[in-house]
Amino acid sequence: MKKPLVGIIMGSDSDLPTMQEAANVLAEFGVAYEMKITSAHRTPEYMASYSSNAHKRGIKIIIAGAGGAAHLPGMSAAHSPLPVIGVPIKTKSLDGIDSLLSIAQMPGGVPVASVAIGNGKNAGILAVQMLAIHDKKLFQKIIEYKKKLKKESLQKNKTLK
Amino acid sequence: MKKPLVGIIMGSDSDLPTMQEAANVLAEFGVAYEMKITSAHRTPEYMASYSSNAHKRGIKIIIAGAGGAAHLPGMSAAHSPLPVIGVPIKTKSLDGIDSLLSIAQMPGGVPVASVAIGNGKNAGILAVQMLAIHDKKLFQKIIEYKKKLKKESLQKNKTLK
Amino acid sequence: MKKPLVGIIMGSDSDLPTMQEAANVLAEFGVAYEMKITSAHRTPEYMASYSSNAHKRGIKIIIAGAGGAAHLPGMSAAHSPLPVIGVPIKTKSLDGIDSLLSIAQMPGGVPVASVAIGNGKNAGILAVQMLAIHDKKLFQKIIEYKKKLKKESLQKNKTLK
Amino acid sequence: MKKPLVGIIMGSDSDLPTMQEAANVLAEFGVAYEMKITSAHRTPEYMASYSSNAHKRGIKIIIAGAGGAAHLPGMSAAHSPLPVIGVPIKTKSLDGIDSLLSIAQMPGGVPVASVAIGNGKNAGILAVQMLAIHDKKLFQKIIEYKKKLKKESLQKNKTLK
Amino acid sequence: MKKPLVGIIMGSDSDLPTMQEAANVLAEFGVAYEMKITSAHRTPEYMASYSSNAHKRGIKIIIAGAGGAAHLPGMSAAHSPLPVIGVPIKTKSLDGIDSLLSIAQMPGGVPVASVAIGNGKNAGILAVQMLAIHDKKLFQKIIEYKKKLKKESLQKNKTLK
Amino acid sequence: MKKPLVGIIMGSDSDLPTMQEAANVLAEFGVAYEMKITSAHRTPEYMASYSSNAHKRGIKIIIAGAGGAAHLPGMSAAHSPLPVIGVPIKTKSLDGIDSLLSIAQMPGGVPVASVAIGNGKNAGILAVQMLAIHDKKLFQKIIEYKKKLKKESLQKNKTLK
Amino acid sequence: MKKPLVGIIMGSDSDLPTMQEAANVLAEFGVAYEMKITSAHRTPEYMASYSSNAHKRGIKIIIAGAGGAAHLPGMSAAHSPLPVIGVPIKTKSLDGIDSLLSIAQMPGGVPVASVAIGNGKNAGILAVQMLAIHDKKLFQKIIEYKKKLKKESLQKNKTLK
Amino acid sequence: MKKPLVGIIMGSDSDLPTMQEAANVLAEFGVAYEMKITSAHRTPEYMASYSSNAHKRGIKIIIAGAGGAAHLPGMSAAHSPLPVIGVPIKTKSLDGIDSLLSIAQMPGGVPVASVAIGNGKNAGILAVQMLAIHDKKLFQKIIEYKKKLKKESLQKNKTLK
Repeated sequence: MKKPLVGIIMGSDSDLPTMQEAANVLAEFGVAYEMKITSAHRTPEYMASYSSNAHKRGIKIIIAGAGGAAHLPGMSAAHSPLPVIGVPIKTKSLDGIDSLLSIAQMPGGVPVASVAIGNGKNAGILAVQMLAIHDKKLFQKIIEYKKKLKKESLQKNKTLK
Repeated sequence: MKKPLVGIIMGSDSDLPTMQEAANVLAEFGVAYEMKITSAHRTPEYMASYSSNAHKRGIKIIIAGAGGAAHLPGMSAAHSPLPVIGVPIKTKSLDGIDSLLSIAQMPGGVPVASVAIGNGKNAGILAVQMLAIHDKKLFQKIIEYKKKLKKESLQKNKTLK
Repeated sequence: MKKPLVGIIMGSDSDLPTMQEAANVLAEFGVAYEMKITSAHRTPEYMASYSSNAHKRGIKIIIAGAGGAAHLPGMSAAHSPLPVIGVPIKTKSLDGIDSLLSIAQMPGGVPVASVAIGNGKNAGILAVQMLAIHDKKLFQKIIEYKKKLKKESLQKNKTLK
Repeated sequence: MKKPLVGIIMGSDSDLPTMQEAANVLAEFGVAYEMKITSAHRTPEYMASYSSNAHKRGIKIIIAGAGGAAHLPGMSAAHSPLPVIGVPIKTKSLDGIDSLLSIAQMPGGVPVASVAIGNGKNAGILAVQMLAIHDKKLFQKIIEYKKKLKKESLQKNKTLK
Repeated sequence: MKKPLVGIIMGSDSDLPTMQEAANVLAEFGVAYEMKITSAHRTPEYMASYSSNAHKRGIKIIIAGAGGAAHLPGMSAAHSPLPVIGVPIKTKSLDGIDSLLSIAQMPGGVPVASVAIGNGKNAGILAVQMLAIHDKKLFQKIIEYKKKLKKESLQKNKTLK
Repeated sequence: MKKPLVGIIMGSDSDLPTMQEAANVLAEFGVAYEMKITSAHRTPEYMASYSSNAHKRGIKIIIAGAGGAAHLPGMSAAHSPLPVIGVPIKTKSLDGIDSLLSIAQMPGGVPVASVAIGNGKNAGILAVQMLAIHDKKLFQKIIEYKKKLKKESLQKNKTLK
Repeated sequence: MKKPLVGIIMGSDSDLPTMQEAANVLAEFGVAYEMKITSAHRTPEYMASYSSNAHKRGIKIIIAGAGGAAHLPGMSAAHSPLPVIGVPIKTKSLDGIDSLLSIAQMPGGVPVASVAIGNGKNAGILAVQMLAIHDKKLFQKIIEYKKKLKKESLQKNKTLK
Repeated sequence: MKKPLVGIIMGSDSDLPTMQEAANVLAEFGVAYEMKITSAHRTPEYMASYSSNAHKRGIKIIIAGAGGAAHLPGMSAAHSPLPVIGVPIKTKSLDGIDSLLSIAQMPGGVPVASVAIGNGKNAGILAVQMLAIHDKKLFQKIIEYKKKLKKESLQKNKTLK
């Protein structure tokens, strides 16, 4: 079994349906990952130790999903030298605009790469693209993936008629 | 010199003008405080140790100010058993609505007491009110303070004419 | 039966499901409370007398929930020297952003401690934290509560696999 | 000197520039008014007694201006059987959207008539229109006022060329 | 049969459930009204003639409901010297914030009295309050109505226990 | 002198700086236009007659600018069979989001073509594009205009270094 | 069979229910159209070639629908000299306010004519109005269409009683 | 001179002050970059060819800044297999919330990594972090950079007193 390159973390198991989409993309691209529930608010020490040590275990990228006052991606980025991708989870009251602002509006020095509200899939693709910077096979897979997207989109024109 | 009862923390010295208003109120009420710059994003370990240990040093309340993806109040609340008051700092791009949502929209289990955007003064008053729960002299001062507010407001009617 | 330390008030019985969560937390921590329907708009005199006199009957904290043009928390804070926690109730048209702004954006001198939209539970915890400032047993319970949150969150990692 | 028919109230003297515009309109239409500073938050008893008794002194309409968590118009409406016009004052942080929602989103049973953010002038005109329902001379003045608006607007076409 | 004093207009029959609540209040207070569908956008001439002539037929107040780019209340106010109450109808896409801004943000000189999103009931009460300025019996009914609100709210405390 | 093909209307002369940009574009493309101040709220009859009759005088497109509760574009579209382009004017309190929603969110049956907040220039270009549908010379000018935009943008790369 | 004058494009087949309403209007007015799925993000080359060449095949207007980060209308406008009408598709998380801003807020030089969120019907009508500028029969149909809207709206008054 | 690894592109030279901050960070970390003005709307072909070919010239990451209907980051991502970082530029009318939504809310399959409004600096750091995944020296520099941030933040506590 391959050592995980991507750590997918989320604040709560209610975020799992969204974050599983990130995992599915990684699996599809053959990128090993691990998945953890670690809440910035309920398990801040675990979140800190996970984030601080991930790179020592070979993790290259952290994908963090959280909703509302969504601090997990930003805090993970505070603790880790790795690139952190944030997934704003859709919320019951404010539809995720609170999550998006809590994740995207990071101060200078500590970036988080925010994707769209609820878009775990794109977090997975973005992670693959980052890994593909120095992995020709993976880069080729990204090119194939984009071709497939294109083809599927074009084919929908047939069913349109 | 009295041991501080309130810890005022902020993510950056640019937050100082807002947070100084909290300190001024505490001074006015004779409540000892300390003031620290500790950023959830730049000094997460210091933030964690400060927040985790504050109550052991006699701190009773934490007032935390932050702007944008404002994680300091929520993270301090994650680490501390003390009540945490959050001050959403007004931001250049979104006027502090990002700060307010990042501070107020905490998940179940880990509350932050949010005051108005940029309102360090009210954070100070709220801290005094909490301390006054078991401090009759302080409680009396709150009653006097409210009387003074009333009197000043009523007197403005004279200058109105 | 113990004398109530926390007064939970709400503008309408439709707010009860949200506010009951605050009551449940207080019950869980063994903090006596009372619960009243008192609308800033429909029963302003009762709201005023309740808020003005609560501290004379031994109430230490007021938790007030309201939605839309949510004036109950702020008006209760206007009348009472006690700390007031505001719970913005989710609304049908604007999802509670109106409630949040009506509660959080209080002017200097009269703070309300706002929690998240619809988060009665956190209002309860915040009240316990305030009371625990001078109650070692309660403070210990808060520490235990946070440990339990931590444990439950960590255990979810087992079911994840 | 005529007995005032309209009571203009505001939470703070910083609201005066906006509220003076309401007064100017009333003066222009020959409607007697009085102007008071009465804060829902700092002088809740004065606000309550003012609002509860205004109609007994011959006041027919209350115009109330407030900003942020703007409770004055709604609370005045809670205490008074008179129609209450609310003027949302523009705020430093959120430009008055907080004021507008705090004023407009009143619950069923206790209406406030909200005008535009910062538009004291329109509050004055609306008050005149309400009084004109049973005052033929005033009604005629409204018709003349609208003609003047029309004429001035049409004449601007000349300077356009 | 009494001549109508209030004209209730709406842009579409889909607004009827909301506007019927205004009518119900008027009926409850014994105020005669008429109800018309007149769209600012689909029947602008009818809207203009209705609004321009309403006062000649004895109408004293216009209540206008509209959603989205909600122009009916403002246009009715443009054509009529009468006070116009606007009801922002809740919309499918933006929940009525578009309606509220389109109705409340009127320019200087042409006010609309906006009530809360979807709150036809409050439009009815506000109309009654305006009429009651010079109608002692109606004014007394308003006082009774507010007493009833109060009583009902207080009684809910019994069922709470 | 050529007969105007485009009618540029605005609610107030304060809108002129924005609307002049539309006029400048039309002049640049050699499209004759006329410019009028006609307020939906202050001169509703003139607005109605202007809009109803414009096409009879040879006007092919109406460009309407307005701010706040911006009813001019929608009302002009209600009265005219011509395509109407709406320019949301930036406002002092809400920066033009009120104008944009009041203009864009028109109901089914009566469209307005909204451009960006404050973007009179784009209204002018859009009008030219509409006229160019059946005017080969004008269409060629649009193609040249787009080439010029391209060239200017590319040349900025030289000054970048 | 007539050559299409209007090209209706959309980013995904999930946009079809909204965009079909545009097609229905065109069919009702006897305007030939074509419908394509072409995503700015998945098929950027097809989008570019479609948009760049549409006018060469006789297309006079492009109607483009997209949701979220809705780039299709703006990119089509970047590539084509034709007028482009944008339809902001309602989105799951932010109800289409993201789509509206992504479509309406185009920079100077490259306009898109935005209609209301989810209002494919109005995009169709607007296209017909543009074509009718130089087509008397079509212009007459627009006049008839507006009469029909008027009649239907007026008739609803009968069922109201 | 080193071959550029990062391509910084922006829609207009008015975006330069923000994007220069990204360049400064890259220079500080010794990462070679190139900077181009290429507008999705004014030079769509250049944008497409730049984005499609960047990886062939050795570019590993694209940083794209744009404001308003900000399509450059998303379109660059549509054309390139490389990871694309988007910088939402602050806008005059809506303060950059339009830019943020236009950049962050990308559909499934084509991610953009959004940073905070106006935060070119964080785009630069994020690019360095991505490159550092397979570059130990650069990774070490990131660790040093974070230490420096920490040190500077902690030292501010001295000047606080």
